[in-house]
Amino acid sequence: MRERAYLREVGPRDGIQLVKQFLPTERKLEWCRAEAEAGVREIEVTSFVPASVVPQFADAAEVVRGVSTIQDVQISALIPNVKGAQRGFDLGVPMLNFVVSASEAHNMANVRRTTDESIAEFRKIIAERDRRGLKDKTRIAGGIATAFGCTLQGEVPETRVIEIARLLAQAGADMIYLADTVGYGNPAQVRRLFAAAVKEVRPLKVGAHFHDTRGLGIANVTAALDVGIQHFDASLAGLGGCPFAPGATGNINAEDCAFLLESMGFDTGIDIEALRQLRKRIEAWLPGEAFFGMVARAGLPKTFVRASKSAA
Amino acid sequence: MRERAYLREVGPRDGIQLVKQFLPTERKLEWCRAEAEAGVREIEVTSFVPASVVPQFADAAEVVRGVSTIQDVQISALIPNVKGAQRGFDLGVPMLNFVVSASEAHNMANVRRTTDESIAEFRKIIAERDRRGLKDKTRIAGGIATAFGCTLQGEVPETRVIEIARLLAQAGADMIYLADTVGYGNPAQVRRLFAAAVKEVRPLKVGAHFHDTRGLGIANVTAALDVGIQHFDASLAGLGGCPFAPGATGNINAEDCAFLLESMGFDTGIDIEALRQLRKRIEAWLPGEAFFGMVARAGLPKTFVRASKSAA
Repeated sequence: MRERAYLREVGPRDGIQLVKQFLPTERKLEWCRAEAEAGVREIEVTSFVPASVVPQFADAAEVVRGVSTIQDVQISALIPNVKGAQRGFDLGVPMLNFVVSASEAHNMANVRRTTDESIAEFRKIIAERDRRGLKDKTRIAGGIATAFGCTLQGEVPETRVIEIARLLAQAGADMIYLADTVGYGNPAQVRRLFAAAVKEVRPLKVGAHFHDTRGLGIANVTAALDVGIQHFDASLAGLGGCPFAPGATGNINAEDCAFLLESMGFDTGIDIEALRQLRKRIEAWLPGEAFFGMVARAGLPKTFVRASKSAA
Repeated sequence: MRERAYLREVGPRDGIQLVKQFLPTERKLEWCRAEAEAGVREIEVTSFVPASVVPQFADAAEVVRGVSTIQDVQISALIPNVKGAQRGFDLGVPMLNFVVSASEAHNMANVRRTTDESIAEFRKIIAERDRRGLKDKTRIAGGIATAFGCTLQGEVPETRVIEIARLLAQAGADMIYLADTVGYGNPAQVRRLFAAAVKEVRPLKVGAHFHDTRGLGIANVTAALDVGIQHFDASLAGLGGCPFAPGATGNINAEDCAFLLESMGFDTGIDIEALRQLRKRIEAWLPGEAFFGMVARAGLPKTFVRASKSAA
């Protein structure tokens, strides 16, 4: 049996949150269905932020209802606060992703709260879930943004990142994510910080959310694998960005990340050729957006053997 | 003292060998001078192939003479055979890079020889150098192309790569390079093959020549660092390609590679901002070419500290 690795597609959320043009709900659903057909097993499908803040997610409820019929996929959605979580609970979303920035400046810019206030908000979310009797139905992940540095604040103390990881875990998080929101992280830092986080919150799983802003995204995935991380966010065509990180390019590219994992022998379940075909559709839907990634250009090696094929 | 890492700029050779438009000699010299000013300590400046085969290198002799006045830089040039080596010896080039493909099919397409014939040619080159009394003046590196797989042949046996490394070392190579000419390598393979090569040819140094064709180039640098490799080829703006690898994109990007090394604490001597400025000039000189790399787009992190600054 091959070791498993999990690629979570975050394109329908992180990938398009800054795309001005509204992607019709039916397109979003087609995207998610095609991802599932390509073997992707986790998709972050939308965000429960107010439509006045991010108009792209005005159809969050319709998207969630639409994807609920897709088989064998873990659906999740981003929640910025208790209000967003309530929408998620009401709609029966099986996994909700809360985010707090380790950078005080970034958290203030993002949600107008101190990091301590955001952690208190996370406790309220967990309490509300449990009050509703959803403890066994709805998982809640705690994500830590700007964990590797911040474009506003600069350095983010690693001790604070690990402290926040511990506080989220103690509050009842079902999983912890460390996010390099602005692409500041390097492989040495990734190994150090993920190893420390894993040690701090075990037995909780720790996932990685990398951006490829400065070209080290895939190297950082390799570094995280080295310390036992198996959950990675990525977006098709490397779509995405950050409103508070000028010039920042997107999430790590899903096709290249899947190629890395599969070629190193990790079973992702993903058919990379199917992702390449889907990418062509997405490119046609989003004219004028920047698309990244190399496998889409060059194709798979002649020597490529899918790890997941042997496991299937 | 920081650990050193060596980035060799190969843009003036590998980067432009497929560029149809002839880059004037004065531009090539300006490029090399600016690289040296940016702190780059090794440059592959040209190739001694016949001008009929690669017109871009018709000015090889003028380039070599022009760069000979640049201080503190190790200049090298590619040689395909004894004839090319003779030109290098005549011009007093301090380092010559011979290449044999580990793939029989690729070597045949590239130089119309079997790999055994190419290794025999390498022995002749070493003998000719020694006959001329240049043993202490001219270093000769043995590079192994398609060491991680081949677009023509597919799999390349690792045992053959290591055997060729041993034969080149026994023949008198001063250094060995393993090249992922077509971007097939992954970090697990990189660690395995470089570790084996280092063991086989020690105390000779082993360098890495990666292409970023499928997005794993910088991850492969990280993997090579893990097994003690400190010499890396890269090209400004990721220029380059391979005539026998259709759709293949170029060498790993020099700016991103320097950013990786410096941010991990390796002293490269390089001023990445100076490289970014130089890149703008090169882009203006080569309209219509594809330029790669992320640091050039996004800039350095606010938190970035040059490793080489502390060592200087």
